[in-house]
Parts: sequence; C-alpha cells; structure tokens
Amino acid sequence: MAYKEQYPSALLTEAVEAISSLPGVGRRSALRLALHLLKQPAENVHHFTSAINDLRDGVRYCRCCRMISDDDICAICADKSRDQRTICVVESVRDVMSIEATGQYHGVYHVLGGIISPIAGVGPSDLTIKELTGRVNALEDPQKAEVILALSGDVEGETTAFYVYRQIEGSGVRVSTLARGLGFGDDLEYADSLTLGRSITNRQLFKP
Amino acid sequence: MAYKEQYPSALLTEAVEAISSLPGVGRRSALRLALHLLKQPAENVHHFTSAINDLRDGVRYCRCCRMISDDDICAICADKSRDQRTICVVESVRDVMSIEATGQYHGVYHVLGGIISPIAGVGPSDLTIKELTGRVNALEDPQKAEVILALSGDVEGETTAFYVYRQIEGSGVRVSTLARGLGFGDDLEYADSLTLGRSITNRQLFKP
Repeated sequence: MAYKEQYPSALLTEAVEAISSLPGVGRRSALRLALHLLKQPAENVHHFTSAINDLRDGVRYCRCCRMISDDDICAICADKSRDQRTICVVESVRDVMSIEATGQYHGVYHVLGGIISPIAGVGPSDLTIKELTGRVNALEDPQKAEVILALSGDVEGETTAFYVYRQIEGSGVRVSTLARGLGFGDDLEYADSLTLGRSITNRQLFKP
Repeated sequence: MAYKEQYPSALLTEAVEAISSLPGVGRRSALRLALHLLKQPAENVHHFTSAINDLRDGVRYCRCCRMISDDDICAICADKSRDQRTICVVESVRDVMSIEATGQYHGVYHVLGGIISPIAGVGPSDLTIKELTGRVNALEDPQKAEVILALSGDVEGETTAFYVYRQIEGSGVRVSTLARGLGFGDDLEYADSLTLGRSITNRQLFKP
C-alpha cells in the first residue's frame, strides 16, 4: 500500500506535488496532467510554463480601477464612451469579467482586491479602499455620480459594503447596491425562505 | 456577448489558453487557476513552473523496462528480490503504478509506451516491442519464464496483445493475460452480458 503515495521518480513526485497545489486539483488529476505533459513536445511544455511565468511577472494593474491591464490605464477606464461617473465596486478581477459578460453595465469599476475578513486576517488597509475614496473625492459634482456596491451577500460582503459606505457617505455621491431576490426562472418552491422573504419585502412595480 | 471570450489582458489570455490546453481543463477552470496563480507569491509560481520544466527536460526512462526512472535502471528492475523472469507488459507508466498499488505483483514490467491503433496512427514500430522481444530472447531457460499481457480489453488492446504474442511465441516463454470476469463485489444484475457470459464460460473451481 505504501507505493500508492510513491512515484517512480523524484522529478515526477516534485511535479505532481506542484500541480496538486492548485485549487481543486487532487493528486490523481495532478499525476494525469504530469504524465500528459511528459508526452508533449518539450517546446509545448516550455510555452505552457512561460505563459504562466510571463503572466505572474508581467501582470499590471490599472492605475485607476486596479483591474488587470496591459497598460497603465485599463481599456474600460480609458473608454470615453463609458459613464465615468458610475463606479461599480467589486471584490475581484473575476467579478469585473462576470459583470462585463452581461453586457448590461456601461460605467466603470473599482476592484477592492479582496473583502474584509477578520478570520482570514484581511483588514480595510489590505484593500484599495483609500484609492476608492480618493477617486470619489476627486469627482466633480458628486451628487450626479453613483457608487454601486456589488459585493457578495455574505457577512464579509455586507461588512465590507458597510465599511466602504461609511468612508464615502460624506462625499454626497449616491450609493446603491445590487438588487437581490429570486433569480429569473427560479421556482418559488425551491427558493430559500430568506431570499423569498426579501423578494416580497422589496417587491417591485409590475411592468408588463 | 463578445466580451465573454475576451480577457482584460493579453498576458492573461495567453496563460488561460496555455492552461486550458491541458486535458479536462476548460476555459473557466483555466481562468480560475490563472487568477489563483496571480495571487501567489512569485517564487511559488516559479517553483511550480520549474517543477514542470524539470520533469519534462530531466525525465529518464529505465533502459530495461522503459518505466520513468531517476536512474539508468529503475528501482523495480534493480530490485533483486523481485522475480526478473516474470515480465508484465503494459501500455503506460500509469499502468505500472496501478499494478504496484495493488501490492499483488512481484515480477518486473515492460512499458510499451502506447497501444497499436491505426486510427491514431500508432503502429508496432512506435512501441517498445523490439526491446521486449530482445529481453525475452535474452532470457535463460525461457520455458521457466512468463510474459503477462496486461493490456486493456478493447479492440486496440487485443490487437496489441495478439501482435506481441506473435512476436514472442517462438521463444518458448509462457504467455498469459489478465483474468477477466465480474469485479469483486459486483452485482450480477448490473453486469454487462458479455462479461457475465465470459465469467460463466471461464468459471473457476470454488475454493472456500
């Protein structure tokens, strides 16, 4: 049985350990991937590892919104056709991509780079909240601007939203948050009671 | 919708494309892994990519059985306590690891490095069949030796087994194959009829 966790080569062991350090990749999948890479031409494997090294070493973040960017200013912040007075505050780069994929949003973003979580040891100073307040305070006519707090609905998300709100409420900017309720196409029967209850409390005018 | 397939940075696009070239990794998982790697310290990422490069560039195969090995001769072939007159012929490195994990086998191996498949363009000369016949012909007292054809039960596996058999049958070595039948703990009701039929034809003496 001891062999189960053993590999026939130290190089293979190292590679399997490195690959299985990725989230969601177990040792079996890591072994499968390592053996797959072994079968590829060496230049394909080098291209694979260089692409990862290049990303890690060459990545840049937009000076304005902290989104991943190839330039000093990202494509969204540089796009003058987008509403620069509506700032959508999100936790991560991925959230920007998710919202962009909807095609429904035409403002700009601010990536916090995380969420306040005392358990994970992440405090407000670890996030880009100072940069956000700087952006908000620099807005002309702040009462015509809007900050959308698009954070997750769990305790950390609500804590972060509340903290950000307290930092910017004095600026006169309008602060909004994402609509929450039943998903489109959702069945009442299977909705959790908290969501269903909030959907009734926050019911909207029927627009046929 | 166009944005769905777009990434905010060329470096990220390259990395996602490289990662999603792995088998079983889609673009969504690749993005998740790329963003995970971005959050890691640079030295961890470099360690990850070096482990893969080192494996690909430094890998060696046992001169005798073609198993992955750190040395010229693998640990199994070098182990004098193992039965060097019983050679288990398998398709891949992984099969060796699977059989070793059972703890039931004490002979040595021969890794073919693939299976004969006209559709995939793999012929006998792409495999290590010549090396196997060389090993078999070099055996002293071949009638006391055994070659186990431990190949898969599909058409390619059977074709390969038959081809290998024809190459070595003249040597006088005993040639065997894996037992096939119902798995231990299998329910008769759910067995496919081919397996069940073979299990009856090849029934064994009951040893209580």
